[in-house]
Amino acid sequence: MAPSPREGNPELKDALDENVQLVERTVTRLLPETDLAEAQLYDAMRYGILAGGKRLRPFIVMQSARLFNVDPARAKRVAAAIEMVHSYSLIHDDLPAMDNADMRRGKLSVHKAYDEATAILAGDALLTMAFEILAESDTHEDPRVRCELVAAMAAAAGPQGMVGGQMLDLIGENENFDLGTISRMQRMKTGKLMAFACEAGAILGKASEQQRKALTSYAYDLGLAFQVTDDILDVESDPNTMGKPANQDSQAGKSTFVSTMGKDQARMRAEMLVAQAKRHLHIFEGRAVMLELLADYVLQRRA
Amino acid sequence: MAPSPREGNPELKDALDENVQLVERTVTRLLPETDLAEAQLYDAMRYGILAGGKRLRPFIVMQSARLFNVDPARAKRVAAAIEMVHSYSLIHDDLPAMDNADMRRGKLSVHKAYDEATAILAGDALLTMAFEILAESDTHEDPRVRCELVAAMAAAAGPQGMVGGQMLDLIGENENFDLGTISRMQRMKTGKLMAFACEAGAILGKASEQQRKALTSYAYDLGLAFQVTDDILDVESDPNTMGKPANQDSQAGKSTFVSTMGKDQARMRAEMLVAQAKRHLHIFEGRAVMLELLADYVLQRRA
Repeated sequence: MAPSPREGNPELKDALDENVQLVERTVTRLLPETDLAEAQLYDAMRYGILAGGKRLRPFIVMQSARLFNVDPARAKRVAAAIEMVHSYSLIHDDLPAMDNADMRRGKLSVHKAYDEATAILAGDALLTMAFEILAESDTHEDPRVRCELVAAMAAAAGPQGMVGGQMLDLIGENENFDLGTISRMQRMKTGKLMAFACEAGAILGKASEQQRKALTSYAYDLGLAFQVTDDILDVESDPNTMGKPANQDSQAGKSTFVSTMGKDQARMRAEMLVAQAKRHLHIFEGRAVMLELLADYVLQRRA
Repeated sequence: MAPSPREGNPELKDALDENVQLVERTVTRLLPETDLAEAQLYDAMRYGILAGGKRLRPFIVMQSARLFNVDPARAKRVAAAIEMVHSYSLIHDDLPAMDNADMRRGKLSVHKAYDEATAILAGDALLTMAFEILAESDTHEDPRVRCELVAAMAAAAGPQGMVGGQMLDLIGENENFDLGTISRMQRMKTGKLMAFACEAGAILGKASEQQRKALTSYAYDLGLAFQVTDDILDVESDPNTMGKPANQDSQAGKSTFVSTMGKDQARMRAEMLVAQAKRHLHIFEGRAVMLELLADYVLQRRA
């Protein structure tokens, strides 16, 4: 089962494709079309979240939930909620005052397809709905589990997590961060939500502390490896592959792993992180195959 | 105890003042100063939420919780969470792409005191933290209660509530809404969060369905009366009293109660709503004095 470096493992590819369908079906059901006067808001929310993407965070939720035999009907609600939070962050990050990106995955970004006000509100609405979904009894019969999901997602997405990381990223445009600060920024900006995606399965399945710790450790290493390869792809790739102009981050003067340690060192760092991520999964004794394949994929991906 | 129309009832005034202190202490403890690289984010959050204001929503939470003997140490967490949501909405509403307001309560708005990106992120962070606070066990020992608070606040703040109302408000700049749509917009934009503030006490106190219904009915009438008097003050008041330029909404071409029904009709409508709001409180047999006084205050306020 030696995967082709360009294509990735076929088993993983099938599972990822199937997951994309699941996420889009679930999100479409949670965000139905409406003929209300404010329909534009729902349209923009759907446009922002149904704009494609690999749906990695939902995939990680579903796979980690599976390790503890969690009902997929429940796990997919958490998967949709995390994707809503991820999508809201992309919509707000693309705004003119932030990264000022007109395109996202080869399509107009939300504020270009609609307008800035609608994009701000669509992001706000997706974030708010995500918490509502977690708190509803369909997500888990035990309210303690639901509260834990809400608190953990908020911690991952808030000032100590994603939003704080985005603030650091913007500050980094005018300051030269050292490697420690870049790592901390990436851990906040993408690592914590990734870790929550992994942890969510463990929370839903009332897993042991040790299992939970193994999954979050895996996720942090995976997330950081993902970010390092993102920085590499950013300087390497052509605009068509990435769906956004290449070299965008380094042009904006942002500190990245590549700008700090160089491309070769960055690649070695990513390989080391992936190996480490997979070692954390050993306690699942081969039952976490998809999560292992996902780690390999991080080194193989071209976009 | 005939209140002076300019000053309002002195007992209410004392209680409101005391509540302002409580809210600011609680929020300050929940948002401590930091020397982290991302300190600017926390500074902007504090600047946005500690910018003054009557703290009506927290006051309503504390007063409704008191009706059911809820521990104030719990209620004040919910009060702070609602104020965070209210503040986030003001920060985002003031952005150039939305209402483009440079001033708020006589001070620079957050995007003017900091910058647009920081204002967007500070709003996002306040919203996210609000849900985290509700989900934490310090808010209530029963996780069912906490989940109910999270789901109800999300419903009040999300696309079916505040965010949807704000979308309608923006659409209304280019369309002439009828009175029904204006009422629906205001119910979504401000009524639902006001109703949640009232309902929160009932949720915390595990009140009966009838008590809960009485409180939300009170809140909807109060919220609408508040909005009608806001529209009246907007055409009447001078810039110094309101802390923002007078006549702002009607200049932007927005449909308001005054633009639709005229000032005299609007004043009568407000009086009718306040009387109706107070009638809903009769089931508390005189124990909801402060909520009654608050309803009277809506007709007396000058700002």
